[in-house]
Amino acid sequence: MNTKDKVLLAYSGGLDTSCILKWLQEKGFEVICFIADVGQDEDFEAAKKKAFGCGAEEVIIKDVKEDFVENYIWPSIQMGLVYEERYLLGTSLARPCISVALVEAAKSRGAKYIAHGATGKGNDQVRFEMCAYALFPEVKIISPWRDDDFCKRFQGRLDLIKYAEQNGIPVSAKPSAPWSTDANIMHISYESGILEDPNQIAPNNLYEMTKDPKLAPSKPYRVKIHFQNGLPVKAEDMQSMKTFKKPIDILKFLNEVGGLYGIGRIDIVENRFVGLKSRGVYETPGGTILFSAHQDLEVFCLDREIYRTKSYLRDSMSVYVYNGFWFSPEAVFTRKCLELSQEHVNGEVIMELMPGYCKPLARKSAQELYNQELVSMDVHGGYVPADATGFIRINSVRSTEFARAYGKYKC
Amino acid sequence: MNTKDKVLLAYSGGLDTSCILKWLQEKGFEVICFIADVGQDEDFEAAKKKAFGCGAEEVIIKDVKEDFVENYIWPSIQMGLVYEERYLLGTSLARPCISVALVEAAKSRGAKYIAHGATGKGNDQVRFEMCAYALFPEVKIISPWRDDDFCKRFQGRLDLIKYAEQNGIPVSAKPSAPWSTDANIMHISYESGILEDPNQIAPNNLYEMTKDPKLAPSKPYRVKIHFQNGLPVKAEDMQSMKTFKKPIDILKFLNEVGGLYGIGRIDIVENRFVGLKSRGVYETPGGTILFSAHQDLEVFCLDREIYRTKSYLRDSMSVYVYNGFWFSPEAVFTRKCLELSQEHVNGEVIMELMPGYCKPLARKSAQELYNQELVSMDVHGGYVPADATGFIRINSVRSTEFARAYGKYKC
Amino acid sequence: MNTKDKVLLAYSGGLDTSCILKWLQEKGFEVICFIADVGQDEDFEAAKKKAFGCGAEEVIIKDVKEDFVENYIWPSIQMGLVYEERYLLGTSLARPCISVALVEAAKSRGAKYIAHGATGKGNDQVRFEMCAYALFPEVKIISPWRDDDFCKRFQGRLDLIKYAEQNGIPVSAKPSAPWSTDANIMHISYESGILEDPNQIAPNNLYEMTKDPKLAPSKPYRVKIHFQNGLPVKAEDMQSMKTFKKPIDILKFLNEVGGLYGIGRIDIVENRFVGLKSRGVYETPGGTILFSAHQDLEVFCLDREIYRTKSYLRDSMSVYVYNGFWFSPEAVFTRKCLELSQEHVNGEVIMELMPGYCKPLARKSAQELYNQELVSMDVHGGYVPADATGFIRINSVRSTEFARAYGKYKC
Amino acid sequence: MNTKDKVLLAYSGGLDTSCILKWLQEKGFEVICFIADVGQDEDFEAAKKKAFGCGAEEVIIKDVKEDFVENYIWPSIQMGLVYEERYLLGTSLARPCISVALVEAAKSRGAKYIAHGATGKGNDQVRFEMCAYALFPEVKIISPWRDDDFCKRFQGRLDLIKYAEQNGIPVSAKPSAPWSTDANIMHISYESGILEDPNQIAPNNLYEMTKDPKLAPSKPYRVKIHFQNGLPVKAEDMQSMKTFKKPIDILKFLNEVGGLYGIGRIDIVENRFVGLKSRGVYETPGGTILFSAHQDLEVFCLDREIYRTKSYLRDSMSVYVYNGFWFSPEAVFTRKCLELSQEHVNGEVIMELMPGYCKPLARKSAQELYNQELVSMDVHGGYVPADATGFIRINSVRSTEFARAYGKYKC
Repeated sequence: MNTKDKVLLAYSGGLDTSCILKWLQEKGFEVICFIADVGQDEDFEAAKKKAFGCGAEEVIIKDVKEDFVENYIWPSIQMGLVYEERYLLGTSLARPCISVALVEAAKSRGAKYIAHGATGKGNDQVRFEMCAYALFPEVKIISPWRDDDFCKRFQGRLDLIKYAEQNGIPVSAKPSAPWSTDANIMHISYESGILEDPNQIAPNNLYEMTKDPKLAPSKPYRVKIHFQNGLPVKAEDMQSMKTFKKPIDILKFLNEVGGLYGIGRIDIVENRFVGLKSRGVYETPGGTILFSAHQDLEVFCLDREIYRTKSYLRDSMSVYVYNGFWFSPEAVFTRKCLELSQEHVNGEVIMELMPGYCKPLARKSAQELYNQELVSMDVHGGYVPADATGFIRINSVRSTEFARAYGKYKC
Repeated sequence: MNTKDKVLLAYSGGLDTSCILKWLQEKGFEVICFIADVGQDEDFEAAKKKAFGCGAEEVIIKDVKEDFVENYIWPSIQMGLVYEERYLLGTSLARPCISVALVEAAKSRGAKYIAHGATGKGNDQVRFEMCAYALFPEVKIISPWRDDDFCKRFQGRLDLIKYAEQNGIPVSAKPSAPWSTDANIMHISYESGILEDPNQIAPNNLYEMTKDPKLAPSKPYRVKIHFQNGLPVKAEDMQSMKTFKKPIDILKFLNEVGGLYGIGRIDIVENRFVGLKSRGVYETPGGTILFSAHQDLEVFCLDREIYRTKSYLRDSMSVYVYNGFWFSPEAVFTRKCLELSQEHVNGEVIMELMPGYCKPLARKSAQELYNQELVSMDVHGGYVPADATGFIRINSVRSTEFARAYGKYKC
Repeated sequence: MNTKDKVLLAYSGGLDTSCILKWLQEKGFEVICFIADVGQDEDFEAAKKKAFGCGAEEVIIKDVKEDFVENYIWPSIQMGLVYEERYLLGTSLARPCISVALVEAAKSRGAKYIAHGATGKGNDQVRFEMCAYALFPEVKIISPWRDDDFCKRFQGRLDLIKYAEQNGIPVSAKPSAPWSTDANIMHISYESGILEDPNQIAPNNLYEMTKDPKLAPSKPYRVKIHFQNGLPVKAEDMQSMKTFKKPIDILKFLNEVGGLYGIGRIDIVENRFVGLKSRGVYETPGGTILFSAHQDLEVFCLDREIYRTKSYLRDSMSVYVYNGFWFSPEAVFTRKCLELSQEHVNGEVIMELMPGYCKPLARKSAQELYNQELVSMDVHGGYVPADATGFIRINSVRSTEFARAYGKYKC
Repeated sequence: MNTKDKVLLAYSGGLDTSCILKWLQEKGFEVICFIADVGQDEDFEAAKKKAFGCGAEEVIIKDVKEDFVENYIWPSIQMGLVYEERYLLGTSLARPCISVALVEAAKSRGAKYIAHGATGKGNDQVRFEMCAYALFPEVKIISPWRDDDFCKRFQGRLDLIKYAEQNGIPVSAKPSAPWSTDANIMHISYESGILEDPNQIAPNNLYEMTKDPKLAPSKPYRVKIHFQNGLPVKAEDMQSMKTFKKPIDILKFLNEVGGLYGIGRIDIVENRFVGLKSRGVYETPGGTILFSAHQDLEVFCLDREIYRTKSYLRDSMSVYVYNGFWFSPEAVFTRKCLELSQEHVNGEVIMELMPGYCKPLARKSAQELYNQELVSMDVHGGYVPADATGFIRINSVRSTEFARAYGKYKC
């Protein structure tokens, strides 16, 4: 390695990446710190100052919030992505967004190296690096937590603190939480530490983005969400009659009211791409409302069999995104198919927010596949009930034939 | 048709099937009324009396509640069945259970005909008849609502009332609800009438099995559910420390507390097998708690890829059951596969009930695939973080190759 | 029915549809005969004369061969359609093509009725009628072989012959083959009659489109097929160096040489949409060569995971087409996805024709995802073998964990 | 590493593994050579002598042919495994079989290390090591072709030859073929070398197991294959009337006649698990006949929808096996499901062997789901054609509704 090699470090301002910043300099690198503002609640100026204090050549703080909302969260809502039936992928979606900015910064500074502080057992290392390789194949990745030297030197938090003190890295007086956190405008995740025991109930004071549902307003709150091609295009506060149209404004509004009602908290065990199971606690207030509204409108607008194929593709895409394959052949293709499926997902849904959950109450669309007249028990329309006789009888052929050939059904 | 032919009529005690009972006699049939007690809240003695009053030769009331819980609901929980992501199949599961009893009764009475009052646009006609044909291929089905004569004669509710009055069929003084209902020990469904407009918010006084969440106790309630091979085997009330082991007792207990907390209400549009979209409102208190607990334990116990294959099979099975194919080659096969998948779904889940929803808080298993030591960020166990480097790089090969051959990714 | 109602009859010139033509007139219809020329070997002028002789008001003969090749066969090759692993859908693809022309003719003549001679146990009735309803929802279909009157009157071939003689319908002196046939430019199918016994070996003199492989030239023949976006765009005869570019010319050329070599004969049992199993013998010379060449190029050009998703969609689409859902929401959507998947299926394949089969020998593409340098055992390129260590070890995590938790693998 | 550590080397007798044998000794290992006899045509005694000559402490030659046929090939036929539509997995299936024997030998000798000569770009390294880790999690793998030292020292074949000469390793005078080969009782594969160019036609003299179809007997040959639960249980030579029942005898017989007719040759590009595309040429005479016979019987015996689910599972299983996950949670589960699916695949198929290909001619089963009477156009049985009317009309509902709501179909 040349002593003057530049490395872009995905910097968080925390103890770990500050130590990594120093350690990279020891290794002979010129370090440029990069912080993506994806909506996390952080003092970016303080982080910048800290980075410079630790010897960073440059500190780049890039606001990618709108990009994140429009090009990652919105498509995810449109595609209906959800991992293992429950997780809305808040962290997984942020990673490619951050990686794009990181790679751009690296290229613009002529840096051949990218470093990050993600652990060696997690998903994030995979997501960051997969994106980086896809966008910048010749990049060299430095992942200290997978580096033998680094890991021997820093065997626990105490080693980091000691190193920080020795190297003039300010250490927060505040004791760190007994879990780790990842925050952005879509969600906050909590894992590790005391959460590692899946049978230990998560403490109630964990949550930062949502209020305790027990303390939420008891009166329901209604919002109307409008979709075009499966994308949210407007949110209406049905109390104040305020409306929001810009994606980031819609999300912020829904985060606010959703947070007030304690909506979108989950506590799950999930399967990581590296083969481990881990326990995660997540809060995704606005995302949960949008997901649920979209889910409701979608089944309303889509033909049954398109819906089924779409669901299969959605499940695949959710795994791709969770695993870090946002920039991959399969994700590019599957996303196009899912976008196609949303051509007719146009309309609006009234969502009721209640303490701890939300649910759709009503939905409509300009061009409706739902045909009230046809389904009505009181109307004789284009559908001829007598046709059902033949339909049922032909559908029974295989079942009766099976019993004839291979024996009666067990009841 | 011989004038002495016997017909088994699936009788509900309501106006429709009472008129059908008379009408079948007019057609020359000897009518045996059959009522399956699947847990609906009904005065069976009154229904019996009414049936005899309307000329029934015999009235059979069969309690199939335990059969329903053990052989239909429990397997459904074990398989994780859910239709179009939200509907827990309360009605769909009851149909094959009722059909088995109906067919048995028909055979034991030497009846060659079975009649039912299901409409010609719905799923239930399909479910009843598919089951009947599978179990009793030579059966003849009479479905008055698909019969031209019957439909011409009874064009609306008024015609039924008039006919009832003319034929001495007692008509309830209570005005019927502006929707139709199907109830059993698992759930109550509401559809038709004013619910046919999917943009009309369902009235709050609709629900019979669950309290309004706004009126539920504000203090959370905890229950612990134990599973063996994916089947619920015990429920513990963590407040009173009472335990329930018999399936029907577990379900009743969870229905009671779940009902108290207003858990399991959904309002959806769904895709019927006959090609129509319909709007349904459902309440499934105990089933929702069981489904959610099982979902949580399953992802905890199952290998990731078994989980994925299982989910695919589950989606298929849910469609089979919804469509009425409980007794079909595909359902028999798929069910066996799903049962196999549950071999290791053993353990317990603590569920928290809150007004309007429930969620898992903690879970454990005797033989755990979850490996706390391996996943811990603080432990260096059998998993070697450095291995992730090669894992990521090889997983990136296709993505970088794709960009090389076919052009850069759009960001 | 008004005595002056017009009906469009899908006419074949054979005994059945000639009797139907008469029978429809008896029923009071004005009958317009419609024959689609999809490439079957038939004397259209004779058929026309016969139809007029039987009382047709008008006889429409429409050449839809190019439409059939370009808009049905070509997309099928592009999508890689094959039913139950073996059947290339020659008949299934022709049905929607014919139906479009039939519906157009019916509309242009103001006919509200369409009649056909397909049997009541087969797939073709479904395909014709599904297409007709999709394109002309208010159409009324007359399907004599499902009509009680007709079926009682014509209980067998002898009844038809008798009726023909009584009504001046010319009956061919040539005894009909002991099986039934459907022919078009893509294939000929044989079924029914002596073929109904699946354990009876099909007679060797059955085939009309292909020579007996035992009598084929012993010298292999080579053709090169070029594809663009998965569609065949050129075929080269590598012996004569002649080239063919128009779809119909490519197909005719490949039918000719494929027929000479006896390529594309299959003898299968298949699952019909109506729930029956049937035995079919098919010969599809050119289609088999194109399918095989496309299959080879596709796996060469497509990313592995796109290929996998595409294969899933292809299997669904094959079922849709077989079942008659060419014009359906799901087919429209799935086809668009499959077309998208073919963006990079560009290149050429050298096919070797041998008596009875063909196989790909070589393939290339201008922009290759295949990377000879990377895969070479002798080159150290962008792929780093040492990375495989971590890749394998991380991929083993789940397998070793599974054995730890749930017991050793059985060997 | 202790100087006395024992390593089990998967030894082939060739130049590569002989050099590896020496190199491991240089590294301080005590080397035990292991050769699995999976049916490859090899002089095992000569290999043994050579190994001892190169300093092996022990040479184990284990005949696993019967195990391979009964526990790997037979299940594969039963499950219908095929990778990317064409490759019958001959090498992939042998790997776990060999690995089991290798691991057993290692354990019995107290060896903690296993070494192999598979390349770092291929599938076999993954298959061997995945199996080894699954069965022997604490094993240490030595893969010289991924070892930096080894790779620097041996940059090409010439380096190996030089090293051999220096170390008294006999080098075959016969020039090696310009491709590499893997052979077992099921197949021989050819890849690398001149085959790496996918547009280069493979030389005709490549094949060792099958005759050139051009030189095959012109007279067709018939064999009858009997299956029970989808497993081949008997093969009859319909010329000589000889029968074969033991799995290995069935396979040998079919290899012999299949080889005589040049059956089972394919030339494909495939997608490796490590993300590369490679070109492979394979010959699998007996396996091809068995696969084709099983495929024919299966669709004959299985319910349509079971067949569809089974095919989905089969596709997954084929990928698992190809990728090296024979001993994995997903393969264990999926295999059980696939075995279940074969309960009714009982019967016999007459296969015709022709030069270069084979095809089913006839099939039968004792308990037939195929119902000749029902499907016959001439019989009025349990199937009522008139029922198809309603069946078609209800199936058309979604298609016509879709056009109503979202616009006409494009023709």
